[in-house]
Amino acid sequence: MDSEQRFTSALQAIRPVDTSFSAQGQAHLDDLTKPKGSLGRLEEIALRLFCIQKGARPIAADPARIYTIAGDHGVTAEGVSLFPQEVTRQMVLNFLNGGAGINVLARTVGADLMVVDAGSCGGTYPEHPKLLQRKVAQGTDNFVNGPAMSRKNCLTALLLGMELADMAAEQGCRTVATGEMGISNTTPATALYCAFLGIDPAEITGAGTGLDAGGIARKTAVIRQALQTNRAAVETTDPVNILAALGGYEIAALAGLVLGAARNGLAVLVDGFISTAAFTAAAALCPHVHDYAFFSHASAEQGHRKILAALGNRPLHDLDLRLGEGTGAALSLFLLRSACNIFNDMATFSAAGVAKGAETL
Amino acid sequence: MDSEQRFTSALQAIRPVDTSFSAQGQAHLDDLTKPKGSLGRLEEIALRLFCIQKGARPIAADPARIYTIAGDHGVTAEGVSLFPQEVTRQMVLNFLNGGAGINVLARTVGADLMVVDAGSCGGTYPEHPKLLQRKVAQGTDNFVNGPAMSRKNCLTALLLGMELADMAAEQGCRTVATGEMGISNTTPATALYCAFLGIDPAEITGAGTGLDAGGIARKTAVIRQALQTNRAAVETTDPVNILAALGGYEIAALAGLVLGAARNGLAVLVDGFISTAAFTAAAALCPHVHDYAFFSHASAEQGHRKILAALGNRPLHDLDLRLGEGTGAALSLFLLRSACNIFNDMATFSAAGVAKGAETL
Repeated sequence: MDSEQRFTSALQAIRPVDTSFSAQGQAHLDDLTKPKGSLGRLEEIALRLFCIQKGARPIAADPARIYTIAGDHGVTAEGVSLFPQEVTRQMVLNFLNGGAGINVLARTVGADLMVVDAGSCGGTYPEHPKLLQRKVAQGTDNFVNGPAMSRKNCLTALLLGMELADMAAEQGCRTVATGEMGISNTTPATALYCAFLGIDPAEITGAGTGLDAGGIARKTAVIRQALQTNRAAVETTDPVNILAALGGYEIAALAGLVLGAARNGLAVLVDGFISTAAFTAAAALCPHVHDYAFFSHASAEQGHRKILAALGNRPLHDLDLRLGEGTGAALSLFLLRSACNIFNDMATFSAAGVAKGAETL
Repeated sequence: MDSEQRFTSALQAIRPVDTSFSAQGQAHLDDLTKPKGSLGRLEEIALRLFCIQKGARPIAADPARIYTIAGDHGVTAEGVSLFPQEVTRQMVLNFLNGGAGINVLARTVGADLMVVDAGSCGGTYPEHPKLLQRKVAQGTDNFVNGPAMSRKNCLTALLLGMELADMAAEQGCRTVATGEMGISNTTPATALYCAFLGIDPAEITGAGTGLDAGGIARKTAVIRQALQTNRAAVETTDPVNILAALGGYEIAALAGLVLGAARNGLAVLVDGFISTAAFTAAAALCPHVHDYAFFSHASAEQGHRKILAALGNRPLHDLDLRLGEGTGAALSLFLLRSACNIFNDMATFSAAGVAKGAETL
């Protein structure tokens, strides 16, 4: 099979979550020694995991793996980031040395971290047990002048992401989390939101790593130009064409990871602004991914909150994060684990000899 | 010394946090391999802990102890809760058996949990290494008819809470967290907010364990009556008198815990609606407690968000929790720990060989 066929058949294998387990899960939650519903969103998470995991008990968020996927962006030439392109590669090496924010938070929460090079610039990296070198290309082309990726390369990155989900599932993971590194990648992410959700760039273009108002204005103009250049791809309404024209290798691989997680019945923790753009592309390809996704946080990146609302999702955290790498996803894994433990380990009213409350007074 | 003198001298020993460490802490945060400020509230937490801990490194949130303090309330006779008063005692036994929500979350986050009986009804409990039996009285009096506690008993509970903080500090804890159990205790907590913050009961009286609209209306009337009955105590503006008239044993002990944490230079994680009422009383006694407090979550209990805003605090979580027991505080300990690890363990730009971003483009 060629990559078009493999991708199409993988998409067709994604099933919606079976919500017929919902009543049984809710009855269990209501029998735990607490006022009904008093653990709020922890109960909501537990119920969703119970359905994702087809009513099996105990429910589990662990083991969990974070995939932090790197890619570079031709649009960096337009001066849309405070950081030079070399920083993508330098940060990959920082990940391998364990010194980045995502390393610290993955260790803190006890998640496995795997770094993936999907398309950063430069040569091969030193071998490392936590690095997968699967470079599709030396960064994207500058999407101001034409498509960021060919459709073929985009499919390769999508299939890579699906393969990462398969690998996690085979190795016993119950949750995968999305992370990314790519200088300038808020620019393609914003362009993808505009194309998929019909938002004007001025509404959601933000500071990225720290642009001032002038920088944001230039970035907005660059995105507007890229949408204009690639309007034929957007008008096909084929999500792969749109992703190829406006995305990036790490973003396409993350979209594949989201799709692959759903195909494998894994929960997927979506990190911040870039990861949500990858999710948006995945949801355009297969809306069932909504059933498997947990949105870890509302990014401080301007527009993320509006986008989450447009997608109908309420994030788990609101901590003004805007680092990416999977850092917000790592934090929110703790909430999924807590929800599982509540569901699995709390005493029931009858077992604990605690009187149930009246329904009304 | 009598309890009045002991309490007064303890209050005088509370110092504000020394913010002169702030610049040094901020410089360190800005040298870590991430865009400036991109870890948002984690950086804010780390900076506050660095100041609380007087510039010592590494900073630490652990070991942490949750004190879940129980008390009963005479106002239960007015029918303000869906649960019968016996449930306070039953839940204390559930805590000792490890089956309650707080047990599960304390284990999940790795915090020590100590249960304290400050004033629940009924006889002594079976001995247990995780239970302190320090009953001041068999619940409060019904505050619709007169003060909930005598001033003397209220001071005893305040000093008990301070002693719990001393104990935690002596045993090496860096954080204490507040938790409570007391059927009907949203009623005195609401009355305390009204008295301390000048809010009308109708604005903040909520469903507690699950009252319907009629139940909330009755509860509002009960609180209004209690404020009327105890108006002389409120008019003295002495926080101990107000707390004695309108509070409860677990609430007074938690106020003492907050004060004691500040006196010992410990961070204090404030749980939900009831714990924030205890904090409000503590802050009326000594405003420096603000420097040491972290507000774990915005409760689903109606009014809590408004109260946090009135206190000038932004909660760390927003998860629709309304269980109490310390459950929200347990969850947010994970954020404090994450913030410490970021501050202590991330690589700096120079050490990691990562290029620093430009200040502007």
